[in-house]
Amino acid sequence: MIVLGIDPGYAIVGFGVIRYEKGAFIPLEYGSIITAAGDPFERRLEIIYDRLYEILDRHKPSAVSIEKLYYKNNAKTVIGVAEARGVITLACQKHKVPIFEYTPLQVKTAVTGYGRAEKYQVQEMTRRFLRLQAVPKPDDTADALAIAICHCQASGSALRSNFLNRR
Amino acid sequence: MIVLGIDPGYAIVGFGVIRYEKGAFIPLEYGSIITAAGDPFERRLEIIYDRLYEILDRHKPSAVSIEKLYYKNNAKTVIGVAEARGVITLACQKHKVPIFEYTPLQVKTAVTGYGRAEKYQVQEMTRRFLRLQAVPKPDDTADALAIAICHCQASGSALRSNFLNRR
Repeated sequence: MIVLGIDPGYAIVGFGVIRYEKGAFIPLEYGSIITAAGDPFERRLEIIYDRLYEILDRHKPSAVSIEKLYYKNNAKTVIGVAEARGVITLACQKHKVPIFEYTPLQVKTAVTGYGRAEKYQVQEMTRRFLRLQAVPKPDDTADALAIAICHCQASGSALRSNFLNRR
Repeated sequence: MIVLGIDPGYAIVGFGVIRYEKGAFIPLEYGSIITAAGDPFERRLEIIYDRLYEILDRHKPSAVSIEKLYYKNNAKTVIGVAEARGVITLACQKHKVPIFEYTPLQVKTAVTGYGRAEKYQVQEMTRRFLRLQAVPKPDDTADALAIAICHCQASGSALRSNFLNRR
């Protein structure tokens, strides 16, 4: 199973593509889509859409795993982040890839076994699961990989929450 | 000048295409893109994107005018509306059409001369400007036409606020 994890945003979109096979995680590609603050917002959305579209083309994941967005997250940026999430969702839909979303609590629980784990602990466990030398940078990339791992762990279990049912 | 006005949403997207020539407004096409509550959310975003893409193809407007979204508008729906706004913005960007956004106060002032005008007054003035027999239904369609008129009135004046500068 190939899973694409996404940490959504408009300035930085973290992404991580992993293969999950017989309980092992193999990182295929990970990084961040970065857009410039000086660019028009519509251009930033287009860059996110186009880059994500290419990643989906390249890896053809069977699922996309994304962090759930809360209105209370950050009032100043929530509209922009949601707009970016809209084009991310559209890119997945154009590829007919189902989207699953997880809360930070679910991600932490899946990766560390503890819902209130510290960030460094989540990052360290992500690094170990993927047998990486170092924690990927920036945090958005590491977060995206943790979200992808979360979906793999959750697949078939009660933890999974289908994006389709989110409203 | 051809302007496409949009009242964004995920259940209903009102749209109105008008031609503004020598101070007269000619309605070219108006209506609503309606998505079913029973459809997966990603499918709803795709319908909005595809329908809007077709409208942009058909009329090739020189500008898109859209209502500004506030996070205080409605906490429960704001994330979904912003996601829809993201794919609307992407469709415009793919057509290289500049987007302008206006506050409800600006729209009311442009159409009725009074920023705190009642909804029926805005609708009646919109009907008169466009020489329509009746106020278009649903409200989202009438709102979209008012937003389009607002941009025409505002073009070149200090009222205009470029979407590019919104952050």
